[in-house]
Amino acid sequence: MAVKHALSVTREQDFAAWYQAVITEADMAEESGVRGCMVIRPWGFGIWERIQKLLDEQIKATGHDNCYFPLFIPLSYFEKEAEHVDGFAKEMAVVTHHRLIQQDGRMIPDPSAKLEEPLVVRPTSETVIGAAFSRWVQSWRDLPVLVNQWANVVRWEMRTRMFLRTTEFLWQEGHTAHATVEEALEETMKMLEVYRSFAEDCVAMPVIAGEKPENERFPGAVATYSIEAMMQDGKALQAGTSHFLGTTFSSAQNIRFQNSEGVQELAQTTSWGMSTRMIGGLIMTHGDDDGLRVPPRVAPWQVVVVPMLRDTDEDAAVLAYCEDLVTQLNGLDLFREPVRAILDKRPAKAASKRWGWVKKGAPIVVEVGGRDVAGGNVSVLRRDALYRDDGKLDSRILAKGDFVAQASAMLEDIQRSLFAQAKARLDASIDRSIGDIDALKAYFKASPKPGWALVQWSKPTGEGLDKVVQWLKGEKLTLRNVPQDAEAADGTCIFTGAPAVERVLVGRSY
Amino acid sequence: MAVKHALSVTREQDFAAWYQAVITEADMAEESGVRGCMVIRPWGFGIWERIQKLLDEQIKATGHDNCYFPLFIPLSYFEKEAEHVDGFAKEMAVVTHHRLIQQDGRMIPDPSAKLEEPLVVRPTSETVIGAAFSRWVQSWRDLPVLVNQWANVVRWEMRTRMFLRTTEFLWQEGHTAHATVEEALEETMKMLEVYRSFAEDCVAMPVIAGEKPENERFPGAVATYSIEAMMQDGKALQAGTSHFLGTTFSSAQNIRFQNSEGVQELAQTTSWGMSTRMIGGLIMTHGDDDGLRVPPRVAPWQVVVVPMLRDTDEDAAVLAYCEDLVTQLNGLDLFREPVRAILDKRPAKAASKRWGWVKKGAPIVVEVGGRDVAGGNVSVLRRDALYRDDGKLDSRILAKGDFVAQASAMLEDIQRSLFAQAKARLDASIDRSIGDIDALKAYFKASPKPGWALVQWSKPTGEGLDKVVQWLKGEKLTLRNVPQDAEAADGTCIFTGAPAVERVLVGRSY
Repeated sequence: MAVKHALSVTREQDFAAWYQAVITEADMAEESGVRGCMVIRPWGFGIWERIQKLLDEQIKATGHDNCYFPLFIPLSYFEKEAEHVDGFAKEMAVVTHHRLIQQDGRMIPDPSAKLEEPLVVRPTSETVIGAAFSRWVQSWRDLPVLVNQWANVVRWEMRTRMFLRTTEFLWQEGHTAHATVEEALEETMKMLEVYRSFAEDCVAMPVIAGEKPENERFPGAVATYSIEAMMQDGKALQAGTSHFLGTTFSSAQNIRFQNSEGVQELAQTTSWGMSTRMIGGLIMTHGDDDGLRVPPRVAPWQVVVVPMLRDTDEDAAVLAYCEDLVTQLNGLDLFREPVRAILDKRPAKAASKRWGWVKKGAPIVVEVGGRDVAGGNVSVLRRDALYRDDGKLDSRILAKGDFVAQASAMLEDIQRSLFAQAKARLDASIDRSIGDIDALKAYFKASPKPGWALVQWSKPTGEGLDKVVQWLKGEKLTLRNVPQDAEAADGTCIFTGAPAVERVLVGRSY
Repeated sequence: MAVKHALSVTREQDFAAWYQAVITEADMAEESGVRGCMVIRPWGFGIWERIQKLLDEQIKATGHDNCYFPLFIPLSYFEKEAEHVDGFAKEMAVVTHHRLIQQDGRMIPDPSAKLEEPLVVRPTSETVIGAAFSRWVQSWRDLPVLVNQWANVVRWEMRTRMFLRTTEFLWQEGHTAHATVEEALEETMKMLEVYRSFAEDCVAMPVIAGEKPENERFPGAVATYSIEAMMQDGKALQAGTSHFLGTTFSSAQNIRFQNSEGVQELAQTTSWGMSTRMIGGLIMTHGDDDGLRVPPRVAPWQVVVVPMLRDTDEDAAVLAYCEDLVTQLNGLDLFREPVRAILDKRPAKAASKRWGWVKKGAPIVVEVGGRDVAGGNVSVLRRDALYRDDGKLDSRILAKGDFVAQASAMLEDIQRSLFAQAKARLDASIDRSIGDIDALKAYFKASPKPGWALVQWSKPTGEGLDKVVQWLKGEKLTLRNVPQDAEAADGTCIFTGAPAVERVLVGRSY
């Protein structure tokens, strides 16, 4: 039966408009009035706080310490590393003055307060952290240096989109220095694996981990690895990157150490980052036509209890019953943390509150009215299974005690089911059979929207790679990564006809 | 007996140099090479993370949600609120360009990428958050709005000092909007009390909470309240402020609501903040001539276990013994959290590690050597009671099991004792007997350095207040606040001779 959904636009009708509708209807974020910058509202920021907490635990468990480095980077730091500045120079915010004055009733930068050396608002911190490493590292005994920071960064984007590409965004950036290439590469791969497991286990977002082709490397990197997630429109979202930087930044920033034989060497560095972009990925992985669906591990509230009040004497009993329920739920354990349940006492109608939480994607919404209290029951709505076959809301009446006894397992099941749905979609949407360019073109012209193609290629470099990339660009396609777990190549490159050396993912992307 | 202390400079010799030495020797922070900005290193940032966690719990428990607002504020937002911009205009970083280009081999801001409207890097966020509130608030039903953000802010300071006054610093800023003056004032006082209890209960830093005099108000505030802490050199440190903003920002940013009678009203707003300055306060409250002493509740590591290794076969047994000890300690509860214990396995001499942790101020350092293992013992050093009467280190041998059984209580006792020491100093260092200006002058000229004076005054305003402030400035003194719990006035104002209306704290300050 046709269901009347909570959002005014469906994924099928207009995916981009649907994405924006989810963000608005779930009160996640909004335009700020400042070009390309958004306001992250409590529900959106609450999800980010959960991401921060869980990822931070993994970053610390792998031996990294959090630090904080300056927001501003002197221009001269960028001049030292040509390739890096080329990659970022087009899109940086530049501070040139340190004071305002009144002129003709308006404020202007004070010409007498012009900085001698302009400061760049960090687009990423390799240069300024490299400068610190050069102070910290003298001997092999000082290595490895393993640090991370949670910070805001600014890249002057021409076209912005909430969470996916904003002028200012929030992220963590890890930076490490090592004595050997082997150790630095091991670190790079270790953090790629941290991102993969975090995305899959916490955000319930299946990803493909692999190495980016040369043209997609971070400016200055020797090798860049990514996790790529598939959105429901088939496009790829790069959801985290880990870079092996070799000696690019250690030579620019002079990070040298005396090795155990007394010889001076350049340190090998890495960097790796994950950002608020992950929230965009979460929306486009799990959202449906009723709004967001948040996996329980990253949900600010996992169970929301909505009392059905009627402005009668009965209300006090309903509220007391709900409060007891919330207390019992918050005493439960789930994923080695207490369950996060809340009672929604706001002065609004129960139905409007219920739909508000559905659109926000709270994993479980429990409604309690006078009849439930009398019967010792609760009415339970699972966000991952909202409707019955007949199109009606699948609100199930359970005995209160039974619900409390099952709640942790139900939340685990929701976490599992969201992952399983996304994983099934990802697995079914990668074509591994495409053997030539015409088939590739045809694949991406198909309707409904296709996913990705995993094709054999000869891994061309330089001009040869440029040709491939240009051709793909004409088709609005990009190379995503070379999956770690792909089969070995056994044929010819679909782009060059030369013997293939590996398999690479091709897709449209954000 | 004379003790040879770990720092090369004592508090008595040169307090400012001592402060810097603690920061350097405890590896808390360092100059970044970027004017007025510091790098916060793992031990300093670890303390900040503890402060964030504990204060954030209080902010949420009092009903506030975390959000995130833009780093950049358009100039026009500031033009709307004249008094506010006057207070900040002299010290803001201004972004004027969004791209760099190469010229004569150097990077310069691209003249063709000049912003039409310059952007200010937020010195505080009343204006940009006020603009969001004006979108969020239409009806009395939308009130109160209670939000907070953890963020970096920039104020272009001429003289900077690590943690106390830096160009960029980290803080939380709470912002709220209410329907009535009463509710907004209640919020202002509630957050002042949150700051007071946080400073005293978590940072073990006794403070005086009270209202700032008119000349010390936040630009645009109707009333500003602060907590003031006394540093060991007798100076005051303002460690947190809570502002009642009335309709200053709601009229500038048009935050209006329809009240329950259908009439349009301006909302009443508040803001309140605490920053990384708190870490400077912690150092100057608890540090001693051996370095920092961190109260257990905000210590990144509460117990550090240092194995005494000799490169012999015995080492494995020592390490296993230590690991078991750390596991047992981490299983203990303290202040409703697990104890934070760590094994320091770095390749360095045990004595050097011990002194490193003493300088960092870890509350308990445990040393374990082969002899301890054989006897089932540990050697325990309490950072708050480092020396015996004879000047030797007071390292006490305890049976391992006894130490584990006592560890939580010992840490609680250290928390209590650090507070008690600081509280005794504060209480003994406020003179309440000063009845005239000459006595005030004499008091602040005394040696050793005096603390503060609580004096009766007539609370002059405007020019009358200016006179008092100018006179105090000549004596390098400032008005701190009017303590909430001070006795009522019963005499004459020491500045004006008029009948006194209240008592105000006077002191030198940071």
